[in-house]
Amino acid sequence: MAVIQTLTGADVDFLTQVGQQLRVDSIRCSTEAGSGHPTSSMSAADLIAVLISRHLQYDWTKPKEPNNDHLIYSKGHASPLCYAMFKAAGAINDQELLSFRKFGSRLQGHPTPVIPWVDVATGSLGQGLPIAVGVALAGKRLDRLPFHVWALCGDSELAEGSIWEAFDKAGWYGLNNLTAICDINRLGQRGETEYGWKLEVYQRRVEAFGCRAVVIDGHDVAAIDQALTEARGADTQPTVILARTVKGKGFSEIENKDGWHGKALPPEMAERAIKELGGIRNLKVTTARPEPGEPATRGGDGEVSLPTYQKTDRVATRKAYGDALLALAALPRVVAMDGEVSNSTHADEFAKAHPDRFFEMFIAEQQLLATAVGMSVRGYVPFASTFAAFFARAYDFIRMAAISQANLRLVGSHAGVEIGQDGPSQMALEDLAAMRAIHGSAVLYPCDPNSAARLTRVMAERDGITYMRTTRGAYPTLYGPGESFRLGGSKVLRKSGRDRVALIGAGVTVHSCLEAADRLARAGINARVIDLYSVKPVDTRTLREAAAATRGRFVIVEDHYPQGGLAAAVLEALSDDPPRVVHLAVRGLPSSGTPQELMEAAGIAPRQIAAAARRLAGTR
Amino acid sequence: MAVIQTLTGADVDFLTQVGQQLRVDSIRCSTEAGSGHPTSSMSAADLIAVLISRHLQYDWTKPKEPNNDHLIYSKGHASPLCYAMFKAAGAINDQELLSFRKFGSRLQGHPTPVIPWVDVATGSLGQGLPIAVGVALAGKRLDRLPFHVWALCGDSELAEGSIWEAFDKAGWYGLNNLTAICDINRLGQRGETEYGWKLEVYQRRVEAFGCRAVVIDGHDVAAIDQALTEARGADTQPTVILARTVKGKGFSEIENKDGWHGKALPPEMAERAIKELGGIRNLKVTTARPEPGEPATRGGDGEVSLPTYQKTDRVATRKAYGDALLALAALPRVVAMDGEVSNSTHADEFAKAHPDRFFEMFIAEQQLLATAVGMSVRGYVPFASTFAAFFARAYDFIRMAAISQANLRLVGSHAGVEIGQDGPSQMALEDLAAMRAIHGSAVLYPCDPNSAARLTRVMAERDGITYMRTTRGAYPTLYGPGESFRLGGSKVLRKSGRDRVALIGAGVTVHSCLEAADRLARAGINARVIDLYSVKPVDTRTLREAAAATRGRFVIVEDHYPQGGLAAAVLEALSDDPPRVVHLAVRGLPSSGTPQELMEAAGIAPRQIAAAARRLAGTR
Repeated sequence: MAVIQTLTGADVDFLTQVGQQLRVDSIRCSTEAGSGHPTSSMSAADLIAVLISRHLQYDWTKPKEPNNDHLIYSKGHASPLCYAMFKAAGAINDQELLSFRKFGSRLQGHPTPVIPWVDVATGSLGQGLPIAVGVALAGKRLDRLPFHVWALCGDSELAEGSIWEAFDKAGWYGLNNLTAICDINRLGQRGETEYGWKLEVYQRRVEAFGCRAVVIDGHDVAAIDQALTEARGADTQPTVILARTVKGKGFSEIENKDGWHGKALPPEMAERAIKELGGIRNLKVTTARPEPGEPATRGGDGEVSLPTYQKTDRVATRKAYGDALLALAALPRVVAMDGEVSNSTHADEFAKAHPDRFFEMFIAEQQLLATAVGMSVRGYVPFASTFAAFFARAYDFIRMAAISQANLRLVGSHAGVEIGQDGPSQMALEDLAAMRAIHGSAVLYPCDPNSAARLTRVMAERDGITYMRTTRGAYPTLYGPGESFRLGGSKVLRKSGRDRVALIGAGVTVHSCLEAADRLARAGINARVIDLYSVKPVDTRTLREAAAATRGRFVIVEDHYPQGGLAAAVLEALSDDPPRVVHLAVRGLPSSGTPQELMEAAGIAPRQIAAAARRLAGTR
Repeated sequence: MAVIQTLTGADVDFLTQVGQQLRVDSIRCSTEAGSGHPTSSMSAADLIAVLISRHLQYDWTKPKEPNNDHLIYSKGHASPLCYAMFKAAGAINDQELLSFRKFGSRLQGHPTPVIPWVDVATGSLGQGLPIAVGVALAGKRLDRLPFHVWALCGDSELAEGSIWEAFDKAGWYGLNNLTAICDINRLGQRGETEYGWKLEVYQRRVEAFGCRAVVIDGHDVAAIDQALTEARGADTQPTVILARTVKGKGFSEIENKDGWHGKALPPEMAERAIKELGGIRNLKVTTARPEPGEPATRGGDGEVSLPTYQKTDRVATRKAYGDALLALAALPRVVAMDGEVSNSTHADEFAKAHPDRFFEMFIAEQQLLATAVGMSVRGYVPFASTFAAFFARAYDFIRMAAISQANLRLVGSHAGVEIGQDGPSQMALEDLAAMRAIHGSAVLYPCDPNSAARLTRVMAERDGITYMRTTRGAYPTLYGPGESFRLGGSKVLRKSGRDRVALIGAGVTVHSCLEAADRLARAGINARVIDLYSVKPVDTRTLREAAAATRGRFVIVEDHYPQGGLAAAVLEALSDDPPRVVHLAVRGLPSSGTPQELMEAAGIAPRQIAAAARRLAGTR
């Protein structure tokens, strides 16, 4: 058990003063901005005061120090407190504090990693804690460093299922290096939270989910100090501090009053508040520096020997992904995680060979994503996989990960009507649209095992969020083992000087386009065939050449709903001089059947592609 | 407390035989299909045998009977069991059973409402129970009918956060008319589940979440009978039956063995299994019919008096939505729900006036969606609102709701860089792409209060999933109170016989396009301005006319990332004869600032629109 050092009267006084300063500064910066969440900051001010003064081990001058603690504001709207904390720690000055929410300032409405002391963007509730679980998992299993991960959570966000996925995985993995500090201030945005100050409800839940719960008065600095000391000393379990707090604490006019969420105090009111809180202070907190330490898992360039496939092989792209991921294990920082379907995504090859670098997230896709983000925070190269359809479950996490500048590789298998018998619930017919719209994302959709393996390698080397769609079934191997593939690339599979139409597909529809081209050739129509494996960014140059060669006649074929997918990618790219497009996509709601029956029913089979091309080739 | 009737020996024998029949038929149909999940069906066969023989109150000949119980297979992959149950109940014959997973059969890989006895599509785990919560809530609070809602859950899905959102809301709302039957067969897809047969873990969690947990042996028909009797008689709490079961139960070769998830038995093996299970049976179960009953909340056409706004008003579209929703309360079947931000989305107007028809879901967006789907199952007209960004949290639920043929109205407020100071975590810059890609969806984005109010009315009348994006700030009222708006419509706000370019916007960018047109007019350039408030379906005719009038010169301006949004909608619609487009969208990662600063920074401000139009007008 951790040794509890009794606080002296001077300690208590200092901590109290720091808490008041954090409140005053939260009010000042939000009033200056004319917006923000001062009251949600004031409730947690004492928790943060004690944490940064006596428990956090962090070198503010070296935010990348490997053994620094992590502190994630899961309640991202408490950004005034976060920034007031930066000032108290000496990381920013008062002038910068007052730039809060102004254009050009890094102190945005909710924290983002534009700020060097912020790991991830928060502001969509229920995400910071799950990501903290990922960071703690990396610390314990990969880095094997003693740093501690602290997450400041709100009580409203305890209604999010993702929080319970996080507590569950924290308990399951025995993350004693993780502490959630829950600021139970009773009031949400529009009134009381579900359970108000019934801390016993949260306590029962947290304990049932495998964590150690500690209930305290969140304004009693001695109690906070003891709880944080015990938390850092926890042996086997994560700690969840349930702190009973008062929203707007310290300013009697608004304390514990409804109607003050997300509102800056008007200037006169702020003046009264600052007075009641003891005026403006400029106390400096000296945060303890961590012991030096180096991660157990080092980087470096291992020799990656990618799998290759012969043209006579029929190997599903999901299998090639699994093989390539296994090969990438030669890079020590590559890690993988899956949502209990690794025997389908083929991440199981990596899992079996490298159990120390594989993390089973079971059927909890939000935590799957959050774990990957946490691994990215620690500099690892995470590959997260599940069925393509089920990444939809974590779409908000993916959206936020883009703002977090996380480096993620997401691999979704079993996409499209091509999956066949399992039916539409598993088809992911909207994934290309959803993933393309993620800021800074790349979207890949290979059609054969050699391209899938090569692109898996490309993913490992790319920053940002890269999504690859893989296919259930096995199709002919189109490329030789030596062929190269790149982001923004494509392959022209059929080409002549007399192409009257271009057939453009990706993934499974490339094979249909080839068969259609053969049919057309028999009818004397030359068709160019393009494998648009890089859906985002798209190969604008090759598309322009094809448009020029075919007088702008494209048949675009996708195993996806018509909106926002492959055709949209082409049309957006060529919008300043667009081709005429016949667009074959999945327009009805599919059912079960064989892949061939369903592709035929959707109108994306070779016969239908050829017919569309014939109509188009006859025009203009 | 419910009266427990002791089972006779004959009862036990019959129930046991029904269980064996369900197993045999699960094997038969999946082996015939060559795919499916027989072992996950066999574990739950006794639970279903007892349920349909002695507890379910359901008229199979009248699936729309208002007082029928509901039975939702949250573990949708147990579809063989579901269909074997239909056969046992006499709803389908043996021949149809054997059409499982075949093209053209309604017995798809996972259940969908193509089948009249299926309420919602399942197959994405963790969704059936949350929807059952919505159905039970409707039953208790709106219909006030004694029907019971049963959800068959798997143990793997208990790792989904959404399940805990559901248990929480079931407990919070005291849904004693809801029973979750959890088939704890220990094995997931790729190995053991997190907690295997540690039923005490689940029991603690379920109880902590406000439900009554009952632990039984899921193959002891007497114990099942007692648990179901007690469940139906529950006074105040929902019941969660935690049934310890054996995967593949009844066929010794695979019982409790890993490696048999999602695999049909090969024919010879199936033969041995059927033999061991006592051969093929054709027992008929007589399910009890419900007492007749009519919902307390009737339909009907109340007089809706939509709010109207004068051209001198400045009213945010989100406020107009709130006003219109309140007006729609005249229709008795309109209900609303929100994710703890109703004072921002303005759903609070409805909530205050009609607390009996408003359901607070707190910050649990997955349950928000699921509740709406459940209300749709019961024939209500649900409007669910939250910040546009946070619908991303429920994207998988929205995707599945489309397969469920649910009728939902989703209203997302505070979208785009226009929100200003709160920063990118709240901006929903991918919502149009994501929502457009939902099967059968409509996407609306009004720019003024009169159009927002009218379109809210349109939403109430539309089947399928309709999404409306509303705006934080208030802008000029462009339309008179008498103006009409429709799905697939648009408004031409500026038009002349000499338009050299068309400026196309929706929502906030309509105002910027108008201002740009004024600038262009001062420079002698006539610009057509189109308010494309119906983003999906899009007004192809008006767009074609504009293309013809402007020689195909479009400037499309959207407060959205460049992929899959407004421009994609236009380009997809006109892909057979496309215009030349300058596309202004949010290409960088935004920060905080005023709306004007951020729109300027994104390049979607009037000055930039005018500049783009000038460049375009000068070409060709």
